[in-house]
Amino acid sequence: MLGEFNLIDEIKKRFPTPDGVTGIGDDCAILPQHSDRETLVSTDMLMEGVHFLMDDVSPYDLGWKSAAVNVSDIAGMGGRPEGCFLSFALPKTLNDNWLLQFIDGFKALCDRFACPLLGGDTTSSLDRLCISVTVLGSSVKQLPGQAWTPGSARRRSDARSGDLICVTGNLGDSAAGLKAVLDSAGNSSASNCPSSSAAAILRERHYRPIPQVEAGLVLSATPEVHAMMDISDGIGSDLRHILKASEVSAEVDVNSIPLSKELIQFCSEQSTDDCDPLTFALDGGEDYQLLFTATPAAVEALKAKGLRFYVIGRITGASSACQLTWLNTDRDFHGFTHF
Amino acid sequence: MLGEFNLIDEIKKRFPTPDGVTGIGDDCAILPQHSDRETLVSTDMLMEGVHFLMDDVSPYDLGWKSAAVNVSDIAGMGGRPEGCFLSFALPKTLNDNWLLQFIDGFKALCDRFACPLLGGDTTSSLDRLCISVTVLGSSVKQLPGQAWTPGSARRRSDARSGDLICVTGNLGDSAAGLKAVLDSAGNSSASNCPSSSAAAILRERHYRPIPQVEAGLVLSATPEVHAMMDISDGIGSDLRHILKASEVSAEVDVNSIPLSKELIQFCSEQSTDDCDPLTFALDGGEDYQLLFTATPAAVEALKAKGLRFYVIGRITGASSACQLTWLNTDRDFHGFTHF
Repeated sequence: MLGEFNLIDEIKKRFPTPDGVTGIGDDCAILPQHSDRETLVSTDMLMEGVHFLMDDVSPYDLGWKSAAVNVSDIAGMGGRPEGCFLSFALPKTLNDNWLLQFIDGFKALCDRFACPLLGGDTTSSLDRLCISVTVLGSSVKQLPGQAWTPGSARRRSDARSGDLICVTGNLGDSAAGLKAVLDSAGNSSASNCPSSSAAAILRERHYRPIPQVEAGLVLSATPEVHAMMDISDGIGSDLRHILKASEVSAEVDVNSIPLSKELIQFCSEQSTDDCDPLTFALDGGEDYQLLFTATPAAVEALKAKGLRFYVIGRITGASSACQLTWLNTDRDFHGFTHF
Repeated sequence: MLGEFNLIDEIKKRFPTPDGVTGIGDDCAILPQHSDRETLVSTDMLMEGVHFLMDDVSPYDLGWKSAAVNVSDIAGMGGRPEGCFLSFALPKTLNDNWLLQFIDGFKALCDRFACPLLGGDTTSSLDRLCISVTVLGSSVKQLPGQAWTPGSARRRSDARSGDLICVTGNLGDSAAGLKAVLDSAGNSSASNCPSSSAAAILRERHYRPIPQVEAGLVLSATPEVHAMMDISDGIGSDLRHILKASEVSAEVDVNSIPLSKELIQFCSEQSTDDCDPLTFALDGGEDYQLLFTATPAAVEALKAKGLRFYVIGRITGASSACQLTWLNTDRDFHGFTHF
């Protein structure tokens, strides 16, 4: 096994530090500040046995996803990623090849979004792998007295009555992909069969989510895009966070939820009744699309800019009850909770 | 057990967010930037069974220490803590009382150093507790072309030939305290005996380290304090990092290493031969004192300011061999490595 310092050297080789920034090697990383900017910080932990099973996920995919879920939080506020920090507790059974492939996947995601690795922590674990990633980003500093400075961070608390509720892409693919993974893991004879092409595509979407950084930047540059967040726990949960933080009620038309043809095909192939696209889309997590509210005029302006997104509902009014009404269904959806 | 969102609410209640900062509740925390400052970032992971045993440490102490080791990294560069992020993976067996005491200990350390908790992640673990903390700090931006801007971050790479090597306090207490903990844990009849007062004090130093933030700020404000870091793995390891980063050699006089009277008493009480103060001081970790190099003139200036510290050696010259020579001993010391 690579020793602690050899591992750090291998990581340093793969992640050059940008000019003007101090990366791996001191007690802290150092990033310059600019008086017209704000620093965004988010952190996520992934635990073996809870967030992933070693037999089900490739090290490359796990590395990719560990970085992606954090960069997505920067996207969720309309910021630009500036650097990330990777900590892991490594069981002694983990081989070097696994570790280097994990780092390659992590790097591929970071490189795609120009988000350099600037530090972290490497330690050992008695049994299970634990991964923690922190990402820093930046956004334009909000000007005092101005409602929406272009490029400023968008919070959950700014949804207004009359706003349309929008998402930047299909929902449910990741949750269905996870079901495809678990089904083939639980049934070794099934895993020997070639799975359907839909299942393969959904699995890829589960393991290699694409943070919506570019869409987030377009949205934060648009006046009257109000509340925004990334969809990590399913909109049945995430939209309720916006309603609670903004003290508003909303209605969502389930017929407007964007569903991929792969999700619909996958559900039609399943023999059980519990496999329904809307359950995956509204109760399933990890789509990492953006959920935002904006005035109808801003929605028109964004369409004119060519941004791809879908209107799924509207903020019906200020309300401390924060009611979420689903139209065209008699069901209710609450998203995914961790414990 | 508190659910995920109740736990977050309990944490939010205990950690008010300072004015001008966005804390817990959005995808990211938001901190303002200032063009004359730099952002310092450090992160550490603590894993049950590796860094701590649940039966040996109180939840309050573990919370304190989890925050302290991170704040110490900000101190190690001479910065000021600005905010921290706490993630944990919680086994289902952990009760709410344990968790709230952990948070109280974490808060006590944060409050002492005015370092607000601004975010984190809460998730579950199949068995062992894993904790990850990230801390942000700030220092003065280094002016271009100037060697040491007062208040700027001090790195490992700036030690110069002729510098004196200094530490801000006693070494070895934490490692001896850990031995006292493990000895009484491994021998239940011994743990029923009242332990010596020295052992009790050393245990406290192991579990409640005090980050040297104030000393770090005095040091970074002093011109010609060159290299600096905090002592986490013992100077047998940490000083070598400075030598390697600065490409210099050094000598350290073991007779100059500051040792507490409790450490000397504890070692004299032990029946085995392997219990020697220098081994604890130079090979043991987690003292969280500062290790720095400075010109003799700067050392005099710091003494005149009343800063408490000890000169233990000197940088003997530039050298790619990065030789570390121990004076007044025929032994060698390499500090603690994690795997």
